[in-house]
Amino acid sequence: MEAQPTGQPSNGDGRSEAFKRGLARRDRIVGRAGNRRRRMLAALHPDLEKTLIEFAWGTILDRPGLNERDRELITLGVLLALGRDRETTTHLHAALNVGISKDELVELLIHCGLYAGFPVTMTGASLLADVLVARGELTVPEGPADEPPA
Amino acid sequence: MEAQPTGQPSNGDGRSEAFKRGLARRDRIVGRAGNRRRRMLAALHPDLEKTLIEFAWGTILDRPGLNERDRELITLGVLLALGRDRETTTHLHAALNVGISKDELVELLIHCGLYAGFPVTMTGASLLADVLVARGELTVPEGPADEPPA
Amino acid sequence: MEAQPTGQPSNGDGRSEAFKRGLARRDRIVGRAGNRRRRMLAALHPDLEKTLIEFAWGTILDRPGLNERDRELITLGVLLALGRDRETTTHLHAALNVGISKDELVELLIHCGLYAGFPVTMTGASLLADVLVARGELTVPEGPADEPPA
Amino acid sequence: MEAQPTGQPSNGDGRSEAFKRGLARRDRIVGRAGNRRRRMLAALHPDLEKTLIEFAWGTILDRPGLNERDRELITLGVLLALGRDRETTTHLHAALNVGISKDELVELLIHCGLYAGFPVTMTGASLLADVLVARGELTVPEGPADEPPA
Amino acid sequence: MEAQPTGQPSNGDGRSEAFKRGLARRDRIVGRAGNRRRRMLAALHPDLEKTLIEFAWGTILDRPGLNERDRELITLGVLLALGRDRETTTHLHAALNVGISKDELVELLIHCGLYAGFPVTMTGASLLADVLVARGELTVPEGPADEPPA
Amino acid sequence: MEAQPTGQPSNGDGRSEAFKRGLARRDRIVGRAGNRRRRMLAALHPDLEKTLIEFAWGTILDRPGLNERDRELITLGVLLALGRDRETTTHLHAALNVGISKDELVELLIHCGLYAGFPVTMTGASLLADVLVARGELTVPEGPADEPPA
Repeated sequence: MEAQPTGQPSNGDGRSEAFKRGLARRDRIVGRAGNRRRRMLAALHPDLEKTLIEFAWGTILDRPGLNERDRELITLGVLLALGRDRETTTHLHAALNVGISKDELVELLIHCGLYAGFPVTMTGASLLADVLVARGELTVPEGPADEPPA
Repeated sequence: MEAQPTGQPSNGDGRSEAFKRGLARRDRIVGRAGNRRRRMLAALHPDLEKTLIEFAWGTILDRPGLNERDRELITLGVLLALGRDRETTTHLHAALNVGISKDELVELLIHCGLYAGFPVTMTGASLLADVLVARGELTVPEGPADEPPA
Repeated sequence: MEAQPTGQPSNGDGRSEAFKRGLARRDRIVGRAGNRRRRMLAALHPDLEKTLIEFAWGTILDRPGLNERDRELITLGVLLALGRDRETTTHLHAALNVGISKDELVELLIHCGLYAGFPVTMTGASLLADVLVARGELTVPEGPADEPPA
Repeated sequence: MEAQPTGQPSNGDGRSEAFKRGLARRDRIVGRAGNRRRRMLAALHPDLEKTLIEFAWGTILDRPGLNERDRELITLGVLLALGRDRETTTHLHAALNVGISKDELVELLIHCGLYAGFPVTMTGASLLADVLVARGELTVPEGPADEPPA
Repeated sequence: MEAQPTGQPSNGDGRSEAFKRGLARRDRIVGRAGNRRRRMLAALHPDLEKTLIEFAWGTILDRPGLNERDRELITLGVLLALGRDRETTTHLHAALNVGISKDELVELLIHCGLYAGFPVTMTGASLLADVLVARGELTVPEGPADEPPA
Repeated sequence: MEAQPTGQPSNGDGRSEAFKRGLARRDRIVGRAGNRRRRMLAALHPDLEKTLIEFAWGTILDRPGLNERDRELITLGVLLALGRDRETTTHLHAALNVGISKDELVELLIHCGLYAGFPVTMTGASLLADVLVARGELTVPEGPADEPPA
């Protein structure tokens, strides 16, 4: 059927149950951090958002086998290891939104250094600092600019 | 010989046949998207561009075993998987230039999500949207700014 | 519903339409190469095979946007780049099964060397040789054993 | 000091406190699964095991910021994403040893498919099946051998 | 002990010998290029910088087995291969600071193309050009803007 | 020309100068460790070995910008980071053949742990132990078999 290439059952408005569940979960966990992205995806092709929301947020992440905290810890391990920086930022927001503390995230960054190399700790720390600044939860003091040694 | 460290035969102007073939192919496929990059490479060291044009564009990509469309599909799979974002942008232009459609590229992004993880789909969609906007082939509507959930 | 955690509609025998489509596609493309794997997955947990067949083979790979040849070319680019050797072997079989020739696969390996490094070409050539030997389509002659230089 | 290149304080027997803490943790979590590896490391160079036990198991993993369950979940996400198969096997044992269940590990594999690609789910399932068979906790039934389609 | 979670011996001011050694090495090799980063790390959590300086710069990099030049060559190979762009920039500065020449770095980029794919050469060349421009050691001439082919 | 798809000049026997240079370098550095691989490549397609020898060993590695020791250090950093295990084994032989000592290789493995994660150190140590045993330069003592904790 044209409107439902993924074969999910809908109920009259062309949106499957999995899509609705997924959209609610995504909005609760990622929040308005994804507004601009949603407009970009919609401008490109309707199936992009549909597939991601329906399958990722509405089907896999809906499974009961692990709770939201466990899932965000694992997700951040994967994303940091693979260097997916844009998605790491999204899931640092998500981790804070499901109740993982700033100090736990710092510990996760140190822990990932052991298994993926400490550059991952450094890059992750920069991304976390940016996320916390954007949420009004951190201030990085001004200071002298960077320079190579004389 | 000083001017030809890669041992390619030239014909009088110090440029090998492979370099000339490669430059013509690169200009046809990547187009003026690489102008700034070429100046940067030239400023760094003459062998950088020479090696890349002569070997990549003039020798490997000159082989008849796969056509240009096949090659760009494979290249994008590799670049998305490895997270080489700068080069992905170049080859999204290249793919459009050899006749792969926007919808086929969206399908490639969804397909790669299956094998390299859906963050690759998301990052690839952002890069593709930027490429299409730069070519005047897409407009992403304005809307409310991103915010974390209250 | 217990038997259908992914929310796909079934029709009486507990197997969704997407699962049936996916299983038929997998059997046609990968063939009996996956028999042992299926028993292993089934022994571990019923949702493993269900998720992979239903979502990967029955939903994403069922989409019309790219044909089977294009999909296998892209898949091999991704798998070689990420070093997923076990899955590369499966998809070398799949590529041959959908009509990609041995010489085209060799060309794909040389092409991927350019974008993911030539160790990928070497590892891919070993895997391809093993696949062709297993199919009775290649013989590697015996010869002197490997030794480090004296 | 010769015997302590990493600058850790010792107390008379040339082994630092961090080394002793680390060795106890490693033996408790990884168990006798690492016996052969320890002999190999010792045969190569004494600093290899010293550095790994002292720093990894005795210092970073000794920090209170995350518990052992959280750490193994994150570690498996990283190792699966990077394709570090040997270490994945070690940490599948470790995860079971700190109380993560087989079904939770299956869920982790499905979850990681979403973010690192489903080949990771397949490879991880093979490694997990091998680990469970080695522990006497799983039997994979015999059946017809693999063959390519006729 | 609260102030020394990593168990390193200090001498009265709460800073271990390894931290002091590491800080001196880092300042000498990376120089003022890390000022902003140090403020960011300090704002996030005191253990982040402590762990990195004490363990990386003060312990591992303090070992006599390889000299500074060898270590920077290896480090750049790793960082380029993994696509850790932020850290690559830091270590391009470090390489120049320990006496590796611009031409040797260009050769390293060409060499890495062979083993990690030529996109790594291109991305590395962009990062190196930026580093040299920031140090006042390179000028990239202006020219026509990039455009896709007409 | 049929016999020379890469455009390298030959001198009568159909083998280019770059191929001859490359083959001599490969035999000197990798030695008879590559005998079986050469037969496999030849059985698959003549262009595979031609491209690798001519371009990698005969052109890029022939450039004067870095010496053989430097090149092997960088190569091992790249291969360990990307998890290319088969090629790592080849280049551990090559490193020993160009005069890098066992202790320097151990130090390289510890160093790479810092930047690519310590699983790389562990996997690299296993591969190095296997290489040294194959060369008759290391014996790993027998001992109790591995077992999970009771």
